[in-house]
Amino acid sequence: MKIAIDAMGGDHAPRSTVEGAVAAAAQWPKAELLLVGRPEALNPLLGAGKPPNVTVVPAADIIAPDDEPVRAVRRKPDASMNVAARMVKEGAADAMISAGNTGALMAAGLLVLGRLKGIDRPGLTSLFPTTDGKGVLTLDLGANMDAKPEHLLQYALMGSMYRQKVHGLAKPKVGLLNVGTEAAKGNELSKAAFELLETAPIHFIGNVEARDVLSRSCDVLVCDGFSGNILLKAIEGAAETVFGLLKQELTSSLRSKLAAAVLRPNFRRVGKMMDYKVYNGAPLLGVSGLIVKSHGSSDATATMHAIRHTVAAIDNGLIPALAEEFGGK
Amino acid sequence: MKIAIDAMGGDHAPRSTVEGAVAAAAQWPKAELLLVGRPEALNPLLGAGKPPNVTVVPAADIIAPDDEPVRAVRRKPDASMNVAARMVKEGAADAMISAGNTGALMAAGLLVLGRLKGIDRPGLTSLFPTTDGKGVLTLDLGANMDAKPEHLLQYALMGSMYRQKVHGLAKPKVGLLNVGTEAAKGNELSKAAFELLETAPIHFIGNVEARDVLSRSCDVLVCDGFSGNILLKAIEGAAETVFGLLKQELTSSLRSKLAAAVLRPNFRRVGKMMDYKVYNGAPLLGVSGLIVKSHGSSDATATMHAIRHTVAAIDNGLIPALAEEFGGK
Repeated sequence: MKIAIDAMGGDHAPRSTVEGAVAAAAQWPKAELLLVGRPEALNPLLGAGKPPNVTVVPAADIIAPDDEPVRAVRRKPDASMNVAARMVKEGAADAMISAGNTGALMAAGLLVLGRLKGIDRPGLTSLFPTTDGKGVLTLDLGANMDAKPEHLLQYALMGSMYRQKVHGLAKPKVGLLNVGTEAAKGNELSKAAFELLETAPIHFIGNVEARDVLSRSCDVLVCDGFSGNILLKAIEGAAETVFGLLKQELTSSLRSKLAAAVLRPNFRRVGKMMDYKVYNGAPLLGVSGLIVKSHGSSDATATMHAIRHTVAAIDNGLIPALAEEFGGK
Repeated sequence: MKIAIDAMGGDHAPRSTVEGAVAAAAQWPKAELLLVGRPEALNPLLGAGKPPNVTVVPAADIIAPDDEPVRAVRRKPDASMNVAARMVKEGAADAMISAGNTGALMAAGLLVLGRLKGIDRPGLTSLFPTTDGKGVLTLDLGANMDAKPEHLLQYALMGSMYRQKVHGLAKPKVGLLNVGTEAAKGNELSKAAFELLETAPIHFIGNVEARDVLSRSCDVLVCDGFSGNILLKAIEGAAETVFGLLKQELTSSLRSKLAAAVLRPNFRRVGKMMDYKVYNGAPLLGVSGLIVKSHGSSDATATMHAIRHTVAAIDNGLIPALAEEFGGK
């Protein structure tokens, strides 16, 4: 299998993408990892230790984090992200991974690969960390701001299949993000979506409140892009605030510093449980090809995990299965 | 001033409401606190130490947490919450406070007091804890699930006035909850609301991301009831998860227990910063009278703080000011 990696995208690229690819290359020797980007930036990082299954694919341009998405995809054909997307389109790669500009990645998905037949709006996903380590695949996180009930149904079907194919869950539990657990709760959208999900061929467990997401009440959480984005950022912001306050308090005196030093392994374990890295690499579901979004602040470890999820998705035929489910390629 | 307290509403009522009222009675001797509820439950808790400015007002019935809101308000006229609302309506009290069924409290506001002239939909508010202790008044948190842009404008105006009158802020900063900080971001609702807020007579600072809410980017945060509810519960759930994981880790061995014992005052300070208690007591803005929602899990301290905010709102003429702003009573 061949995986194109946008080697220039992400806060810590290209070091993070190169080092992540080198680590992954040793773990999955069957995967050919194609680092797409500026050879003059990538080759020195690879050096003499370049594994045989890592190749540099030249791409002269870069999409910046603040580039306007659609314009960047249209006017920068030689940008690493666009080159990688075209490789998927043309069959030169089975999937692509990028930690770059999320809006541009969605635009590249739509403009270069196009939608899967039967899908109206692709959904941006993320695997939220949960206390049991299994995570909650949440979608949409911002690709589709004004979702319709049918879009939420499509997210549920695609998310369910992803959890089956990539994570081996036999009967993924699907929940609907809502303001209460009762069936009649919510806004017009969530009430209509509830009715569609109830009769869909999925294991729908009903409404899930934002409070319960991290205790892993379900395997797939469905929501519109606006509230999904609010949910994601609220969780990240709250966790950061708590950790920030703790850090401030625990370094406030010599006494607290000494006690905190004793607890360092414990704090590290808690941090690890909430860590996005092992969960990193979630697909843009609904485009006609496998596009995996890696977190913008990914380091080499996070990149390696994104490659791990991508390998599993290819191995288990995610895209062909989705194409079949939604009416042929 | 007279404040009617739904003495039977809340997880820890009536002990929490009685003890909170007794504590507040000593601090604000000018406030007459009217405990509305079952005398046989309230009098024994008050005992011989009843302050002169605390009175029991009999109400035979109780609205349960799982009662259907509108039905509960219509069919239980003698419930403590309804009696308190009628006291406000009839001028027997200047405000009411309840920690009971939130839906029923909103229904009581609409059915007993009615809307303020010029307000289409009342908004449920809460003062979110922030690291600087000033809090962010956020509305709507769930009264109005399918909000229109004009509703968000009304929330901005009412929230701004609340912060001026009750918290003494000269020029409250108003933010719009959104998925990005740029003006063109968001769904149809937030884009249209942005345009209205830009030309409103408030200090509009633009879009605020969920990630930044707790670092207090603004004094008033405006949102629709659906995403406001997601935001509130996501923050609560994430903070609970982090604290829960920490607790589990720090009690996992004798070594960690000993070190954690040294840090107890530090942990307590962090917990206090995130504590809802001092922020407790936020109004249902837009009804024709002052209804203050106290947190369902309020204890005596939280109840006391709700009374504190209510005293300030009455002292500073919040409701007359709102009535004037929105076109006369």
